[in-house]
Amino acid sequence: MRTDDHGWLRRYGTAAPESPLPRNEVLDLLYRHRSVRSFAPGEVDDAAVTAIVAAAQSASTSSNLQAWSVIEVRDPARLDSLARLAGDQDFIRRGGVFLVFVADGARASELARRAGEPAGAVDYIESTIVGFVDAALAAQNAVIAAESLGLGAVYVGSVRNSPEQIADLLGLPRGAFPAFGVVIGHPDPADPAGIKPRLPQAVVRHRERYRLPEADEIAAYDAAVTAYYATQGEPRGWLRAAIARVRDAASLHGRHTMRASLERRGLPSR
Amino acid sequence: MRTDDHGWLRRYGTAAPESPLPRNEVLDLLYRHRSVRSFAPGEVDDAAVTAIVAAAQSASTSSNLQAWSVIEVRDPARLDSLARLAGDQDFIRRGGVFLVFVADGARASELARRAGEPAGAVDYIESTIVGFVDAALAAQNAVIAAESLGLGAVYVGSVRNSPEQIADLLGLPRGAFPAFGVVIGHPDPADPAGIKPRLPQAVVRHRERYRLPEADEIAAYDAAVTAYYATQGEPRGWLRAAIARVRDAASLHGRHTMRASLERRGLPSR
Repeated sequence: MRTDDHGWLRRYGTAAPESPLPRNEVLDLLYRHRSVRSFAPGEVDDAAVTAIVAAAQSASTSSNLQAWSVIEVRDPARLDSLARLAGDQDFIRRGGVFLVFVADGARASELARRAGEPAGAVDYIESTIVGFVDAALAAQNAVIAAESLGLGAVYVGSVRNSPEQIADLLGLPRGAFPAFGVVIGHPDPADPAGIKPRLPQAVVRHRERYRLPEADEIAAYDAAVTAYYATQGEPRGWLRAAIARVRDAASLHGRHTMRASLERRGLPSR
Repeated sequence: MRTDDHGWLRRYGTAAPESPLPRNEVLDLLYRHRSVRSFAPGEVDDAAVTAIVAAAQSASTSSNLQAWSVIEVRDPARLDSLARLAGDQDFIRRGGVFLVFVADGARASELARRAGEPAGAVDYIESTIVGFVDAALAAQNAVIAAESLGLGAVYVGSVRNSPEQIADLLGLPRGAFPAFGVVIGHPDPADPAGIKPRLPQAVVRHRERYRLPEADEIAAYDAAVTAYYATQGEPRGWLRAAIARVRDAASLHGRHTMRASLERRGLPSR
């Protein structure tokens, strides 16, 4: 192992490549990301969220349409409702602020309506995807910004477990759909989160053409994940969980009805 | 205007809020993002891409499924083909490397197949969305990492203009779909890119419940964008372009057939 492996060991569960890699504080920050679900008490103040949202808005967006919104939720009753609807995850109540990122085709539709113009393109799956991708690019900048401020964050995909009820709770108009949430808060120093290893870079990074992974690459990664979870006291690996995650409609934890939910909320995704 | 507005003026076209905002080098880097389309000659070396992909893999991913891949393209003939298929944008040929991010349901499907298990969940739109969101979170980390190294980057959504031909060119298996590209290269100092203003924060950031924008908020933003494009010698604003972008199927520049393309490539998005 190189002593100068700047996070590589924890990120991949292996030593860094022998060739020298560039290094700077931003890369170090990105490498050491971990999902924080244990928060110390305390709000995230307004100025921090202002900086975080400015960072989010600085991300690229398709055709500068900015087809996303973020709902900042602090009201305890609303947080409690959201936590119940999103897999009953208590850390949603206990973070410093909950940001619900929205794939937003509603704003442009409304501006078209005010101008007396149609907005038929919003009906296509291309537009749905643009909304989700724009929301994701923005959210990732938000997470990096939060981490740069010493805060911790975790994505909450389970807002898609009950997207229609969450849309009602947040007053989303037709064409706006809750994509995912991000809880941001002060990490609990007594319960630090771990850095989960990722697939070997050679499995995810393809040169010129796609390549399916070799069995030994997956076995090595499964061993690295198993070793990681063992440090957390959990007997689990990666491969069986990944296979279970894609098995059938039931693997989607209720999200097999997403297409109907999108359509009912004004995104028929033609 | 506050002297200490750290990029706010350029990002929003307005002075920063009066209340003090947190500041650090990471926030400054995020705020000053701009899409670079003019590149100086020169490849992006392998070690830089290794660091960039490690950053990409450090982003969150739904259930640690890592439902994305990246194809690194450097071959001039393949770059030329991709440039032609993706809106004939010459900067794809002239960057230092072209990264095509892939919504990847194929890897998990293949691992299930090898284990003799079904992979029916990949058929649902939830899985398609997870692939695109995972790819977007990863790509945004890649862009931040590249920018931290002094490189410039631009997203290329137009890989979705001809996704099936691009999938063939990159050897993508069923279930893997080209989401978007990112050109990374050395910015041409003779043609620096501008920082495009974004919607006022109050339009995108909603407190507790969604709010449609007021006409004067949109008018102020349209004026800021018009002033920005005037510095580039272009007479255009934002509102008319946004309305044109959502008008009808023709506004999607051929991407109204995305749903059929997804289905033919093994992502029926049920």
